[in-house]
Amino acid sequence: KNRGRLLINCADQPGIVAAVSDFLYKQGANILESSQYSTDPKEGTFFMRIEFECEGLKEKKSNVEENFKEIASTFGMEWSFTFSEELKRTAIFVSKELHCLRELLWEWQSGDLITDLALVISNHEECREIVESLGIPFYYIPANKENRPQVEKQQLELLEKYEIDLIILARYMQILTPTFVAQHPNQIINIHHSFLPAFVGARPYERAYQRGVKLIGATSHYVTNDLDEGPIIEQDIMRVDHRADVDSLKKIGRSIERSVLARAVKWHLEDRIIVHQNKTIVF
Amino acid sequence: KNRGRLLINCADQPGIVAAVSDFLYKQGANILESSQYSTDPKEGTFFMRIEFECEGLKEKKSNVEENFKEIASTFGMEWSFTFSEELKRTAIFVSKELHCLRELLWEWQSGDLITDLALVISNHEECREIVESLGIPFYYIPANKENRPQVEKQQLELLEKYEIDLIILARYMQILTPTFVAQHPNQIINIHHSFLPAFVGARPYERAYQRGVKLIGATSHYVTNDLDEGPIIEQDIMRVDHRADVDSLKKIGRSIERSVLARAVKWHLEDRIIVHQNKTIVF
Amino acid sequence: KNRGRLLINCADQPGIVAAVSDFLYKQGANILESSQYSTDPKEGTFFMRIEFECEGLKEKKSNVEENFKEIASTFGMEWSFTFSEELKRTAIFVSKELHCLRELLWEWQSGDLITDLALVISNHEECREIVESLGIPFYYIPANKENRPQVEKQQLELLEKYEIDLIILARYMQILTPTFVAQHPNQIINIHHSFLPAFVGARPYERAYQRGVKLIGATSHYVTNDLDEGPIIEQDIMRVDHRADVDSLKKIGRSIERSVLARAVKWHLEDRIIVHQNKTIVF
Amino acid sequence: KNRGRLLINCADQPGIVAAVSDFLYKQGANILESSQYSTDPKEGTFFMRIEFECEGLKEKKSNVEENFKEIASTFGMEWSFTFSEELKRTAIFVSKELHCLRELLWEWQSGDLITDLALVISNHEECREIVESLGIPFYYIPANKENRPQVEKQQLELLEKYEIDLIILARYMQILTPTFVAQHPNQIINIHHSFLPAFVGARPYERAYQRGVKLIGATSHYVTNDLDEGPIIEQDIMRVDHRADVDSLKKIGRSIERSVLARAVKWHLEDRIIVHQNKTIVF
Repeated sequence: KNRGRLLINCADQPGIVAAVSDFLYKQGANILESSQYSTDPKEGTFFMRIEFECEGLKEKKSNVEENFKEIASTFGMEWSFTFSEELKRTAIFVSKELHCLRELLWEWQSGDLITDLALVISNHEECREIVESLGIPFYYIPANKENRPQVEKQQLELLEKYEIDLIILARYMQILTPTFVAQHPNQIINIHHSFLPAFVGARPYERAYQRGVKLIGATSHYVTNDLDEGPIIEQDIMRVDHRADVDSLKKIGRSIERSVLARAVKWHLEDRIIVHQNKTIVF
Repeated sequence: KNRGRLLINCADQPGIVAAVSDFLYKQGANILESSQYSTDPKEGTFFMRIEFECEGLKEKKSNVEENFKEIASTFGMEWSFTFSEELKRTAIFVSKELHCLRELLWEWQSGDLITDLALVISNHEECREIVESLGIPFYYIPANKENRPQVEKQQLELLEKYEIDLIILARYMQILTPTFVAQHPNQIINIHHSFLPAFVGARPYERAYQRGVKLIGATSHYVTNDLDEGPIIEQDIMRVDHRADVDSLKKIGRSIERSVLARAVKWHLEDRIIVHQNKTIVF
Repeated sequence: KNRGRLLINCADQPGIVAAVSDFLYKQGANILESSQYSTDPKEGTFFMRIEFECEGLKEKKSNVEENFKEIASTFGMEWSFTFSEELKRTAIFVSKELHCLRELLWEWQSGDLITDLALVISNHEECREIVESLGIPFYYIPANKENRPQVEKQQLELLEKYEIDLIILARYMQILTPTFVAQHPNQIINIHHSFLPAFVGARPYERAYQRGVKLIGATSHYVTNDLDEGPIIEQDIMRVDHRADVDSLKKIGRSIERSVLARAVKWHLEDRIIVHQNKTIVF
Repeated sequence: KNRGRLLINCADQPGIVAAVSDFLYKQGANILESSQYSTDPKEGTFFMRIEFECEGLKEKKSNVEENFKEIASTFGMEWSFTFSEELKRTAIFVSKELHCLRELLWEWQSGDLITDLALVISNHEECREIVESLGIPFYYIPANKENRPQVEKQQLELLEKYEIDLIILARYMQILTPTFVAQHPNQIINIHHSFLPAFVGARPYERAYQRGVKLIGATSHYVTNDLDEGPIIEQDIMRVDHRADVDSLKKIGRSIERSVLARAVKWHLEDRIIVHQNKTIVF
C-alpha cells in the first residue's frame, strides 16, 4: 500500500504545520490523519504525527526522505518516516503464563496486529506447541537470576539475527539488564499487572489484596532501567470487591492485562507513540 | 485573549491542510490544536478544526476573515471563524427536575462552561430562586400541549431579544415545534434519559425497568424535528442490576444525565462539534 | 467436592430464610454464600440462592432433596438443588465468526468455565480443526432458511444424545424455530451484538454506524420466541467516535461480545441466574 | 419507619444464619435484604448484614436487642442493631475546595443521603453562605500546623456537643492527630484525590502528571493514624491523556472525588460497611 507516516518533534514555533503540509502536498501526498501536540506554545516542544497516502510511494520514498532534510534542519526537528509496506519485526518474550501471548497471537492472526512476528523466546516450554503450530520460530532459553548474562547474550544474538524492531514482554517475569535495555531504547514494551505507580515490583495482586483496593489494573509501558518506572503507554482497571481472593484478582487481572498490552502494541506498530522525557504522547 | 478557532468542511482533496496552515502562518497565528477527519480520502468530505493564537487578534479579525475567502472559494469550503473574546450567549430551558440545571450552573460558576448565560426559561417556578440568586434573568412561561404556539412565540421573542446562540434543554420535557427548531438549527442541545436509540420517547426509565436492562444511560443530542433522532453528541451509561426499581434507575440516571449534558455543552461552546448529515464529529 | 446449591422462589412471607437455613443446618451443611431478593416484601415474589458445603454430600443428596419437600410445600416454593459434582453438559453453536467460540474454549481450558463441553455444532467448517484438536466432537450441519426443519431435527437429536443442559449460541446467526426453543426453556444463551433494546435484529453495527452512536455494546440473553427480546443476562459497552467505520465497530464489538457472553455463561453454570417474567435476577 | 439493621461478625461455624433468621422471625421481623461473607468457611471470620422490617419496631427495639444477647453470646458475636428512625448525626469538615461539600449538600437535599446534617466546620469562610442558607450551623476554625491542638480541642467539643456519629472530611486538607482519630474509630471518612495506594500524601495530581499516568482516580477511606493507609471504602477512575495538564487533571478529578465520596458516605449511613483488619466489606 502507498501509506507513510511522518513523526516529528522540535521546539514549538510558528510555521511548522504550514511547512510540513506544504512539503507533503508537493510530494503528491494526501494527508489522511494528522495529530499534533505542544507542551507549551511558548518555548514548548512540538510533536506531530501525519499519516499520508502517496501514489508510487515505494519508488519515491528515499527521495521524500532526502527532500525533507531541508525543512527538518530549518526547524531543528527530530523526525522519522515509516512506510506501511515495511512491516516492523517483532519478538515476543514469555514465561509460563500464556494469556497475553495468546491474545497477541490471536489479534495477529485476525489481522489486527500488523507486524512480522519473527520469533517467540521463552524460559519455559509451555507455549512451544501453540507458537510452532502457527509457523513462528520458538526458542527455549532457560533463564534465572544466575545465568542472566549468558541468556541475554543468546537473546540479543537472536534479536539481531532476526532484525527485531520491537520486543514485547508478554508476562516474561525476568528482569532485563541495563545492557539489554540500552540496545533497544523505547523498543521494549512490558505489561505490568497493576495500575502503576501502585504496586511497583513483585506480586502486585497479593499486595492489592492485602491493601483492600476496590479496583485492580494493568499498565503497559516502555522498559527502562528503573523497574516499572518507564513511560506509561496504556492502563486500564476493573472493579473488585471484598469477595475476591488473590486467585480471583489474578483471573480478573488477566483479562485486563490482555487488552491493555494488545492496545499498546497496536499503537506502537502504528507509530502512534512518541516518548518525551518519561511520558508518552499517544496520537 | 487572542484565541481564535477555524472550522472547515469541504470535499477532500490534496493541499487543504497546506493552504490553511500557510494562511494562518502568514496572518501571524500560531496553531495550538488542530484536528481533522475525512470520511474518505477519495471523494469524501474533509473536516478540520484549528485553534490558534494571534497577537492583536481583536483588531485583525475582520481582516483575517476577509482574507480567508480566497482559500475558501478555491476549495469550496464551508467555514467559520470564532473568537474567544466573543462569548456565545446561552439560554437554558428547564422544567421541574433541576439536577441538569444545577450541574450547568455549577460548572458555569466554577469557570468550566465559558459562556454568557443570558437567561433561564421554565414552565415551573421551582428554579426561580436559585437562578435569580446568581443574577440570571428567569422567565416563567407555563407550557402544555394546548398553548404551544403562544408559548413558543414568547420564547422566540426572548431568544431574539437576548441574542441567544445556544439553547440547552436541561430536562425541559416539552416537545418543540418544527417552527421553533427551524430557527435554531444545530443550536439546541437536549439531554435524553436513555442510551439512544433505545427507549426513544417518553418514560425511558420505566421502559428500561420493564425490559430488564443491565445498563442505563443518557444521550445528549442536537434537536431536530424527529423526536430523539437528532445527531448524537455524547452518551454514557452506568451498570444496574435486578435490585434497582424505577426510582433507583432515575436516581442513578440523574448523575449520568448531568455529566453527559455538561460535556456536550462544553464541546459545543468550544466549537468542537461539526454536524455532518445526522452525525457529529467531535474534535 | 461436597458443594451444593439451592435455588428457590415463592411468594414472599416471613420465616422463609429461617426455615431454609435451619433445614440446611440440620442436614449438616455449612452455608458459603447466600443471596436473596424480593420484588416487594408485601405480596411480592421472593428469590433465594444458597451455596453450601456438606460432608458426604454425594451419599446424602437424594435424601436432602426428599427432606426438603416438606418446607417447599409449606411455602409453595419452586426450587431446585444442584450439586457441583454433576457438571452441566454444554453444546456450542457457531457460524463463521469464531471469536466467541475461541473465548469460551480458552476459558474452559483454563478452568474458568466448569462444564462438560460435549459438542460443537456449526453450519460452516471453519472451526472444525480448533474444536477437534481439543478432543471435542464437532458436527457440521449446513443450515439456511430453507432447510431449517431438517437441520433442527438433526440438532435436537444430537442434543438429546449428548444429554445437553445448556446451548450457547456463540454468534450462530441462524434463527431458531419455536419448536426448538420450546424444548430448551431458559437453556439457550445468545450473544447479540448491540446493547439491547437498541438495534434489535440484523446488522446492528451497520445501524449503529448510521445512527452515529458514541457507544457500542453487546448483550447476552436467554433465547425466547421473540427475536432479541428474551431475558437479558449481561450487557457491556465501549466508547467509539466518529473515526470508527463499520469495520472498526465490528472489531471493537468483538471484544465486548467475547467477555459479555463468557460472563453470562459462567453465571449460568454457577446457577446464579433466575428468570422471572422476562427479566433475570443474577445473584 | 419500622426498619432495622443487624450487623454481625464472629468466627465462622455452622448454624449462624439459621439461628439469626429464626430469631428475627420470632420477633415478627420480615427480612428485606441479607448479605453475608466468610473469609474462609473453615476457621474464618463470618460477617452478616440483615435489613428487616418489623411492625411496631420503635416500641420493641430495646426488647429485641436484649433478647439477641443470648444468640450473640452462644456464637461469640460482635453485633449491633441500628434503627432507621434514629438518624446518624454527621459533621462535614471542609477547606477551600467546595465541590465535595456541594455534592453532599445536594444529595442530602434531594433525600439521597439520609442523615441529620448537624454542622459544617471549616478553616476558611468560603462556604459559610451556602451552608447557613440551608439552616446548617457553620463554624469557622482557622487551622494550620501550629495551632493543631487548640483547633482539635474546639472541634472535639463541637462534635461532642452535637453528638456526632460520622465525620466527613470533604477535602479538609489538614492532618488529624492520633488523639482526634482515636476518639472516632471508623467514623471519619476521607476523600483522597488519587487511586490509592498510588500517590499517597500531598499533591497527587501534580505527581500523576509527572508520572504520565493514563488514568486518574479518587479513593474514599476511613481515617487511621497512617496517612492515606486506612481501610478503602470506594475508588473510581477516569481516563486522561497527554493533553491534560495539572489543572485539567484537577478538574476531571473533582467529578470523581464528588461521586466516590458521596457513595462511601451513603454506604456508611446505610450501615453497609464492616471494617475488618485494614479492609472493608461493603454489603
